[in-house]
Amino acid sequence: MKVSPLAPASYPTLKPIDGVRMAAVECQIRYKGRPDLMLMAFDEGTAVAGALTRSTTAGPPVEWCRAHLAGGTVRAIAANSGNANAYTGQKGHAIVRASAEKAAEVVGCKASEVFIASTGVIGEPPPLEKLTAGIENASGLLKADAWMDTARAIMTTDTFPKVATRQATIDGKTVTINGIAKGSGMIAPDMATMLVFIATDAAIAPKALQDMTDGAVERTFNCITVDSDTSTSDTLITAATGKAGNTPVSEADDPRAADFAAAYEALCMELAHLVIRDGEGATKFVEIEVTGAKSDKDAKQIALSIANAPLVKTAIAGSDPNWGRILMAVGKSGIALDQRDITVTICGIRVTENGAVAPSYVEADAAALMKKDDISIGVDIAQGKGRSRVWTCDLTHGYIDINVSYRS
Amino acid sequence: MKVSPLAPASYPTLKPIDGVRMAAVECQIRYKGRPDLMLMAFDEGTAVAGALTRSTTAGPPVEWCRAHLAGGTVRAIAANSGNANAYTGQKGHAIVRASAEKAAEVVGCKASEVFIASTGVIGEPPPLEKLTAGIENASGLLKADAWMDTARAIMTTDTFPKVATRQATIDGKTVTINGIAKGSGMIAPDMATMLVFIATDAAIAPKALQDMTDGAVERTFNCITVDSDTSTSDTLITAATGKAGNTPVSEADDPRAADFAAAYEALCMELAHLVIRDGEGATKFVEIEVTGAKSDKDAKQIALSIANAPLVKTAIAGSDPNWGRILMAVGKSGIALDQRDITVTICGIRVTENGAVAPSYVEADAAALMKKDDISIGVDIAQGKGRSRVWTCDLTHGYIDINVSYRS
Repeated sequence: MKVSPLAPASYPTLKPIDGVRMAAVECQIRYKGRPDLMLMAFDEGTAVAGALTRSTTAGPPVEWCRAHLAGGTVRAIAANSGNANAYTGQKGHAIVRASAEKAAEVVGCKASEVFIASTGVIGEPPPLEKLTAGIENASGLLKADAWMDTARAIMTTDTFPKVATRQATIDGKTVTINGIAKGSGMIAPDMATMLVFIATDAAIAPKALQDMTDGAVERTFNCITVDSDTSTSDTLITAATGKAGNTPVSEADDPRAADFAAAYEALCMELAHLVIRDGEGATKFVEIEVTGAKSDKDAKQIALSIANAPLVKTAIAGSDPNWGRILMAVGKSGIALDQRDITVTICGIRVTENGAVAPSYVEADAAALMKKDDISIGVDIAQGKGRSRVWTCDLTHGYIDINVSYRS
Repeated sequence: MKVSPLAPASYPTLKPIDGVRMAAVECQIRYKGRPDLMLMAFDEGTAVAGALTRSTTAGPPVEWCRAHLAGGTVRAIAANSGNANAYTGQKGHAIVRASAEKAAEVVGCKASEVFIASTGVIGEPPPLEKLTAGIENASGLLKADAWMDTARAIMTTDTFPKVATRQATIDGKTVTINGIAKGSGMIAPDMATMLVFIATDAAIAPKALQDMTDGAVERTFNCITVDSDTSTSDTLITAATGKAGNTPVSEADDPRAADFAAAYEALCMELAHLVIRDGEGATKFVEIEVTGAKSDKDAKQIALSIANAPLVKTAIAGSDPNWGRILMAVGKSGIALDQRDITVTICGIRVTENGAVAPSYVEADAAALMKKDDISIGVDIAQGKGRSRVWTCDLTHGYIDINVSYRS
């Protein structure tokens, strides 16, 4: 698989986080010659928060995480690639439970403190023996600095590993946040075929961490779309070990935590953008900003209508400033508006005014800018202060190549 | 452009309809060496009904038709391909008015009895002089049996002309219904980049004809999707000349008109299916039926979620019975359900039961049937009696080829 042309030129080095150890191993669940299972272990007293797919066909691992997030603590995360363990019925639930029990045994905790995630093919129960053997093996290899290995272990159609790191200050103490993610196709709001695991040494109580997570996810991972398809397996888990020694933060809006919350959201944004930059077949990274709507919700509905329109995405693939298709996508969004109030910009160039092409618009200028890797589309509808930014990629032959091929 | 592999083996011959004459001419609005404008003329006393895109960025021709459908009568339809006259502002509105006035002049009627339709590129005002010259030319060439010529004149990315005919009986009299259509991409419910013109010699009052049209369109043209993109230009116009001599039908539910209404809807269905069979890049015709929903509306929402899912459509392109992606699309549809109640069938083969793969399922059997041109997907959710059928095509390299190319 060729690496995405939008891949970052280099990867940041993620430093150890006190209270977190990890390992990646090869179980051959589906892939061979590469790690496909990762185990992360956390010291006692680690708080947890998360976000999970809202799909009604969510897989057993998602249901397991949903049931146990309320407990507020995490001691281990076990995640595999190659098999999503979704739509696998009672057998799938039993496999999750047995995997969690195995991880609890090797880490020394309760099964309810273990979070499980799986990504890959839907509909086939994964081989339990390989999973439990992998968890056992990994537990003997845990170390503090295997972030890239774990990021690689959860890749499916991803062409590069996704890692990000930030630092923030709480009570004068420096805290670190590290995150890994996977995702490339079946990516749409309400999370995606996306796994994200984030760890920090900050001391943040579970409720505060969950509130910060809800806000950050809504503005980052829930604002990206590759193909409008929502996965059965999306899982984000954030673990806060508290080892940094700050006085624990118990409310998300505590001013002491403002710097941390901003850094946390910025890290989520970076990981979300990396998923788009690795979108299946992507050759363009596209930001769509809608302003002037009655509400942020309306703005997001229009932005996603544009981001998911195959005709917009194919035009971008062809570096064609085909703004008529953007208008088409605004028109089908379901938001009431007067078309004469729509202002469209492409890469900062004003395209329309008063319901028609702007007299100042020179298509050659827009076409030249559309040849770049990073494209921006702006739409204002002059109704109010509602705004939204979403991110997507283009739709290319590469997407078709990846997804028409038979599974086996 | 290669003709779609799903094109019909032959076309029916459409007989003249008393009170209807037509012509197609070459205006070189965008295309050269082919007709790109058609004029249909109707005798006095012809009733009209129609259906128009619900896009909020509808083009001036659509707004013109919406304003004049209430008049209840039609004397002419003028339609061009190559330029949609959409998002063209006041200039676009003036072009529509001038075109209608020219057609009214040559046919001998009021401009408000002329219906205008345009399909093609969005955002550029079409050349008025070419349009009016074309209407003038066409008016000297009107004849009763140029249905195929008119069907060709409205083609854009279509690879074959779309015509259909039916006969029905009212009061013991045989009536004829002929229809032509175009459409290939930007096809989604709420009509499509689709023009449909239907004529009959039956005597049907405008209100009855409109009621029949609303019902037929909802179950046919509003149940097809190529790419989930809704056009700015969708227009269906049906003209009833009344020349067959039946006692006029004034209510859609008049039992005397039951045979006509059924034939009319069947003709709409045939044209709608032809649009799918000519979907951009299509190699498979796909019927999706959802049953057991709480309402027909719920069933349609699930069916369209499946029909518009790029991952389902690419799997079908690869003849891959990748039923996990069907479950994914059900899961993201927004309709509440218990996943254990979902039964999926592919080409009549039962795939799932009790929330997992059915023990009887043999993938090789489904894979063999998926190699055919016509594929069926069934989903039952065991909640009630709501049901819906929708139609789509696969998503292939051909769709990308057609839509990434620069417009000029």
